[in-house]
Amino acid sequence: MEFRVEKDTLGEINVPADKFWGAQTERSKQNFPIGNEKMPKEIIEAFAILKKSAAKVNSDLGLLDRDKAKAITFAADQLLANKLNDHFPLVVWQTGSGTQSNMNVNEVLAFVGNKWLQEEGSDLVLHPNDDVNKSQSSNDTYPTAMHIAFVLKLENEVLPAISVLKNTLEQKCDAFQDIVKIGRTHLQDATPLTLGQEISGWHRMLEKSELFIRESTEHLKELALGGTAVGTGLNAHPEFSNRVAETISEFTGKNFISAANKFHSLTSYDEAVYAHGALKALAADMMKIANDVRWLASGPRSGIGEITIPANEPGSSIMPGKVNPTQSESVTMVAAQVMGNDATIGFAASQGNFELNVFKPVIAYNFLQSSQLLADSIKSFDERCAQGIEPNVEQIDKNLYGSLMLVTALNPHIGYENAAKIAKKAFDDNSTLKEAAVNLELLTEEEFDAYVKPEEMTYPK
Amino acid sequence: MEFRVEKDTLGEINVPADKFWGAQTERSKQNFPIGNEKMPKEIIEAFAILKKSAAKVNSDLGLLDRDKAKAITFAADQLLANKLNDHFPLVVWQTGSGTQSNMNVNEVLAFVGNKWLQEEGSDLVLHPNDDVNKSQSSNDTYPTAMHIAFVLKLENEVLPAISVLKNTLEQKCDAFQDIVKIGRTHLQDATPLTLGQEISGWHRMLEKSELFIRESTEHLKELALGGTAVGTGLNAHPEFSNRVAETISEFTGKNFISAANKFHSLTSYDEAVYAHGALKALAADMMKIANDVRWLASGPRSGIGEITIPANEPGSSIMPGKVNPTQSESVTMVAAQVMGNDATIGFAASQGNFELNVFKPVIAYNFLQSSQLLADSIKSFDERCAQGIEPNVEQIDKNLYGSLMLVTALNPHIGYENAAKIAKKAFDDNSTLKEAAVNLELLTEEEFDAYVKPEEMTYPK
Amino acid sequence: MEFRVEKDTLGEINVPADKFWGAQTERSKQNFPIGNEKMPKEIIEAFAILKKSAAKVNSDLGLLDRDKAKAITFAADQLLANKLNDHFPLVVWQTGSGTQSNMNVNEVLAFVGNKWLQEEGSDLVLHPNDDVNKSQSSNDTYPTAMHIAFVLKLENEVLPAISVLKNTLEQKCDAFQDIVKIGRTHLQDATPLTLGQEISGWHRMLEKSELFIRESTEHLKELALGGTAVGTGLNAHPEFSNRVAETISEFTGKNFISAANKFHSLTSYDEAVYAHGALKALAADMMKIANDVRWLASGPRSGIGEITIPANEPGSSIMPGKVNPTQSESVTMVAAQVMGNDATIGFAASQGNFELNVFKPVIAYNFLQSSQLLADSIKSFDERCAQGIEPNVEQIDKNLYGSLMLVTALNPHIGYENAAKIAKKAFDDNSTLKEAAVNLELLTEEEFDAYVKPEEMTYPK
Amino acid sequence: MEFRVEKDTLGEINVPADKFWGAQTERSKQNFPIGNEKMPKEIIEAFAILKKSAAKVNSDLGLLDRDKAKAITFAADQLLANKLNDHFPLVVWQTGSGTQSNMNVNEVLAFVGNKWLQEEGSDLVLHPNDDVNKSQSSNDTYPTAMHIAFVLKLENEVLPAISVLKNTLEQKCDAFQDIVKIGRTHLQDATPLTLGQEISGWHRMLEKSELFIRESTEHLKELALGGTAVGTGLNAHPEFSNRVAETISEFTGKNFISAANKFHSLTSYDEAVYAHGALKALAADMMKIANDVRWLASGPRSGIGEITIPANEPGSSIMPGKVNPTQSESVTMVAAQVMGNDATIGFAASQGNFELNVFKPVIAYNFLQSSQLLADSIKSFDERCAQGIEPNVEQIDKNLYGSLMLVTALNPHIGYENAAKIAKKAFDDNSTLKEAAVNLELLTEEEFDAYVKPEEMTYPK
Repeated sequence: MEFRVEKDTLGEINVPADKFWGAQTERSKQNFPIGNEKMPKEIIEAFAILKKSAAKVNSDLGLLDRDKAKAITFAADQLLANKLNDHFPLVVWQTGSGTQSNMNVNEVLAFVGNKWLQEEGSDLVLHPNDDVNKSQSSNDTYPTAMHIAFVLKLENEVLPAISVLKNTLEQKCDAFQDIVKIGRTHLQDATPLTLGQEISGWHRMLEKSELFIRESTEHLKELALGGTAVGTGLNAHPEFSNRVAETISEFTGKNFISAANKFHSLTSYDEAVYAHGALKALAADMMKIANDVRWLASGPRSGIGEITIPANEPGSSIMPGKVNPTQSESVTMVAAQVMGNDATIGFAASQGNFELNVFKPVIAYNFLQSSQLLADSIKSFDERCAQGIEPNVEQIDKNLYGSLMLVTALNPHIGYENAAKIAKKAFDDNSTLKEAAVNLELLTEEEFDAYVKPEEMTYPK
Repeated sequence: MEFRVEKDTLGEINVPADKFWGAQTERSKQNFPIGNEKMPKEIIEAFAILKKSAAKVNSDLGLLDRDKAKAITFAADQLLANKLNDHFPLVVWQTGSGTQSNMNVNEVLAFVGNKWLQEEGSDLVLHPNDDVNKSQSSNDTYPTAMHIAFVLKLENEVLPAISVLKNTLEQKCDAFQDIVKIGRTHLQDATPLTLGQEISGWHRMLEKSELFIRESTEHLKELALGGTAVGTGLNAHPEFSNRVAETISEFTGKNFISAANKFHSLTSYDEAVYAHGALKALAADMMKIANDVRWLASGPRSGIGEITIPANEPGSSIMPGKVNPTQSESVTMVAAQVMGNDATIGFAASQGNFELNVFKPVIAYNFLQSSQLLADSIKSFDERCAQGIEPNVEQIDKNLYGSLMLVTALNPHIGYENAAKIAKKAFDDNSTLKEAAVNLELLTEEEFDAYVKPEEMTYPK
Repeated sequence: MEFRVEKDTLGEINVPADKFWGAQTERSKQNFPIGNEKMPKEIIEAFAILKKSAAKVNSDLGLLDRDKAKAITFAADQLLANKLNDHFPLVVWQTGSGTQSNMNVNEVLAFVGNKWLQEEGSDLVLHPNDDVNKSQSSNDTYPTAMHIAFVLKLENEVLPAISVLKNTLEQKCDAFQDIVKIGRTHLQDATPLTLGQEISGWHRMLEKSELFIRESTEHLKELALGGTAVGTGLNAHPEFSNRVAETISEFTGKNFISAANKFHSLTSYDEAVYAHGALKALAADMMKIANDVRWLASGPRSGIGEITIPANEPGSSIMPGKVNPTQSESVTMVAAQVMGNDATIGFAASQGNFELNVFKPVIAYNFLQSSQLLADSIKSFDERCAQGIEPNVEQIDKNLYGSLMLVTALNPHIGYENAAKIAKKAFDDNSTLKEAAVNLELLTEEEFDAYVKPEEMTYPK
Repeated sequence: MEFRVEKDTLGEINVPADKFWGAQTERSKQNFPIGNEKMPKEIIEAFAILKKSAAKVNSDLGLLDRDKAKAITFAADQLLANKLNDHFPLVVWQTGSGTQSNMNVNEVLAFVGNKWLQEEGSDLVLHPNDDVNKSQSSNDTYPTAMHIAFVLKLENEVLPAISVLKNTLEQKCDAFQDIVKIGRTHLQDATPLTLGQEISGWHRMLEKSELFIRESTEHLKELALGGTAVGTGLNAHPEFSNRVAETISEFTGKNFISAANKFHSLTSYDEAVYAHGALKALAADMMKIANDVRWLASGPRSGIGEITIPANEPGSSIMPGKVNPTQSESVTMVAAQVMGNDATIGFAASQGNFELNVFKPVIAYNFLQSSQLLADSIKSFDERCAQGIEPNVEQIDKNLYGSLMLVTALNPHIGYENAAKIAKKAFDDNSTLKEAAVNLELLTEEEFDAYVKPEEMTYPK
């Protein structure tokens, strides 16, 4: 391995020759050999957006040479085009302010920007701190990058995933709106509803979660940038914070604003806790949906068996009909993960002191993991499971007409006591209600069919 | 102890003669000798509101004798007037649908309503199920009672408590807006800010939490009532659900509405998870505020000591100035409790099956506990701690002017290198910057004072 | 209400005339109007044991008048005999060191002890601090009381409850050891096992949890007492700590020892986190058991229906066989609560600073709540559910013989391909394997019965 | 990209030509495009150990050709030598039984083993299921791999890391045993202790956590292998389970045993919950230690400043003495992560149904992440922070002698009232006790020094 020598105030340090980072990144790399969890790519990309926005604003304000701003922009765009992926080696478990990842971005953008300046024949030299980090501090850039990354992830990945599954469920509601089936409460047979109605409950869950996420994401659009080191904005131009929020909005197509109070922005992650609460609500709902799906598809012989789901993997070669609900299983594992991530985020958010909270990277990591896993698993569940849900009408009917709950429909016709007699006989004989009714000579088969219409029990009258 | 005999379909059972509950309550009492956590009073009261609303609507719809409705209303009002407190003995750890507490309310209201009917000379007899529970099921009443109780608690207790502390902090921001102090990041000395600015960060936390709670509470205003046993509304009049939501709104002064999808209402607690996420954000913020307060007040000699807080209890009789930050401690313990409650609620909300989630009472218990503890501890913290926060100006100045961070203000006047020399000398000599500057003959005392103005470092320029 | 005037270093304060507490208790009562969660009775009782042990040791060491020790002992015994229950009004949400509850005990014991001394004609006067609290500090007494309370609760209530259910399950294992049933993995039909084997898995869970609790409880037997205010033992006799641990052991019948390092005892709750981890493991296991029970008992017609459980409450009057699994539901809600309590305890335990952790009462409250709820719910589940579990042999056989998994037993006799043919036909025709086999003329009914012996698939060969 | 065609019962599928996996792995890869969290390498390696152990036992029992066993062993050893790292592409979020990773290992080992057999000139062909998976099922191999991986990680990485830091702290205890300093409770000045004593509390935390981990790890040594699909051991030789546990023990040098009850092993993760509870206790302790370190090192001017820690990164170039406690920050973020992981594991462990728990990969992932992060961060904290902790004696003395707590030492000499007078005067004048004492003419300087000996307040007398 070849090295070049970089230096900082602690002295010289070897950096791999083919890497664009500098001394501070290298030190962090050596100082934190902890785990394998890299600083999320989404954070690095948000930094790139932030850096080119800051460069533009600094240049507009006359604080940064325009060519330097161009160089930073060029480098940031290279990063966003996935051309610099190998140059961000740092892990989550570093300084709690994320300083070292901010410096990693500063160093790499300066390196790439300087190559560009050289190629352009310029004599200018970008400095990671003085230029790329101008008007900024790790303490305000990192939380800004968090909010940018969270908003993009939620609006561009999580919400679309929800939407896709919501649409599928809406179609299923329509398609199955007339399939009457037994209801179940306390896992016990209850009065009937339609399969479409049952699925409409799942659909509503997604609709609500979508609303929660939309609503809480708005709060994440407030940006810390401009607060600099402690929130006062020292060393930033008075117009910097608003202008940079506007520029970031332009580059991302989202309506970011400058946070009303920067002391809050550097110390509180209440917005992240709140928004992750919406993700937890979604996880709880997805757990319920995925569980319902696997229970309804349980069997093939000795389970509930009222729906079938696609077989995506080889099941038992000798035993037909055995389809493991693997997509449900990945969804429920994701739900368990999100529950834990929520605990971590709440804990971390509570631990700020004075002008800084130094649990930022762990919040970022968990928030983005939850978002990614929910988005991915929902999309996969939609495509490989939900879209393929089909009713097993034979079994649905068997459960429905075998049920004793329908007996209540007879009350108005033969009175409560006779109805109860029928139910008791059916239970004792392990027969259907109809068989028991006819057997007790309380009703003819035709009368029974005329009176017991499960579909009429599926709405208020 | 004297008893009267009550009966239900399982047979006869003895009920204490002086209690108004019936057979089903008594059975639950005997069947669940688990813990001491009573079904929260707020839930029982919400049931009373619900029952009299249902009675009114049933009567308006011609489904319930008007005098019976009056009797139910009378009984419910007695309950709400705290006259029936001894008649709700059931614990949280019962049926997961809360059925037994619904029956407890039905039985007690029927008992009291029947006494009233007798006194009024009526021959009518209220039946707990047929009359008090008419058009209802435990499965839709319990979640309705949860939402009513949550909304009342949040809007009538939590939000006002936040408001009180917010106002106190606002006053402190104003009062201390010119007190410049050292900032701290990573627990290390940083650039200055004013004490008012520091507190403005806390103020903003409360402002944000308030918004989160307001926003998420709106979702709790959707009521399950009208869904009956499985969400279909079987046995309820088609107009019941909307009318009862309106009536509940009238009685409470809140704008409740009937939930758009009752299958969701019986199985999903996403609204509760989401709203409790807002409470968790508040808890995280309160933890930060309470921690800052106790650290800033730490000492009296060997701590930070920049503020003083009221002494509410005897401290050391011999050692003046030692004030244990006990209000902060109760707040931080509450924050820890809310974190755990949030985990319980998320877990419970994820465990629905088919047409019912049977973790309702545990959700209600934890949600209301968090709300009550936050409201109470914030009010107490406000009254017994925050209002009494005073700056310890001597210590603030000592820390500020002793700090080496101010040296940056000299850069424009004597250059970076000379400034660094001064800082180094001050650090080595354990002296102030001013002493070092004069000592190095780089500046006179007057020049130093003219250049180093900490207050000018507290805003962007 | 009548009052007497008490005073402390902050001045005079009114105390209700019929209450035995003093000024510091009264102040705490007024200063912490937060929630309704009283300091757990188990902690107060542990304090009583501690106080009389300390009195004995102080007296033996010649540091306390023997009659004063007698008076303290008399008062502590009154407390332990439940005669002083009305005199401990303080809540959990107080000073985080539990100081005020320590003082509450000191004040009440001094009050009662002084009455006794007067009655005995003594001129001695007990002082809450100088005598009852002699050689102690809140900082070492409260954690000592926690450990005493935890050990007594775990060994005297939780372990016996586990033992009772374990025995019931053992009996069920034996009784059902020959009932072969279908296995289920991924909720899908799998190879058979016996009902006894299935239950043996639950039994083993309890056996393991029992071991975990036993093991981890040993660590709770280390006591902080003797560390006094900061862990150094200042103001305590060098022999105090060991002697008092011995005395507490005598009084409780448990083998407590003095902690090897008191600085640890005052600041770390690792033992509590670890032991509560054992309770969480138990909760997770109980969740699984209670879920299996309710799923196996689901139906009566449209569920799994392989076992029946007792009907403890009236179910549907008209629908026989519908038994809501209410005991399971209370167990699973308790499990959810324990999960949350575990989060609170872990959080609280991590928040110590320097010589003290001030989250003690919240740890005590959650630990004891988990213990009580697990003990109570397990006992109730045992008595009202597990003991009454009976196999529904008809349904078990239907599921077993209807299953397609048994086809693998035919491989050695007719080859894999023919076996697969049979399974496919049975699946397509919705028939049993036997029907399909006979129908395909691959086997006679007798041959099928001779080859397909599910019981032979329930052990390794 | 080039492909080869593989097939399974669902049909043909393209596999990248340079990859050794087969159809089932490829399908899983395509079916679960969820997140980036790969199945932990430790699990894959544990599978390799398991597979070669099973091959050996199968061969010894005459169930597997000896050359096939050799081939499997060769392949497994290649895997363990890190030569097959590119062939395990699957993520955590797959089938909840981990089936697909079991198949991934089976397929890759068969592929590599077959190459070896060919090279050896053998005609034998390994089949992933029939040979590599012989006597096994995913349902018993995956939990076996989990336990193997957990035990190796805990005993080979976590315990050694603890040991290293424990030794460092022990040395610090010795080195600083005579440095008397102010104690702090409730963040308020308290009676003195030595710096060595303070650190001994940390040391004891590690000692306890070490014990908890040792103890709970023993339970993880019970292996599921031999239970096959549902726990009955169907298709396994009766001696298989014990023999394979012995073989695994030989290969790993750990004393694994066959689990007493395999139904438990497939459905309960109580051992993992319990052992992770020990990790959570360690995390809580490390949080306390890391927090103490950063608070004690806070400053350089306006904090506690009683110790110094190494500067691993450039701090402020202009401001000497500012050392961000970055190692502490990474430790506390890890602690927050472990808290959340613990919630996930508890949740997942509670969700078993019937003969299987399908949350295995998420448990494995979180358990191993916690272990790795704790091991790594503790080692890093030790090397880069704890070893370099040095007392700042000047500041320690300033805090100690400036403290008012020492006044209690004067009581025996001049009486409580005079002592209190001195303390009051010192507080009012903001002077030291000695100054106040001399000033009040209650003591000479010499007398004061003779009476006030803080070191005598650091142990019981």
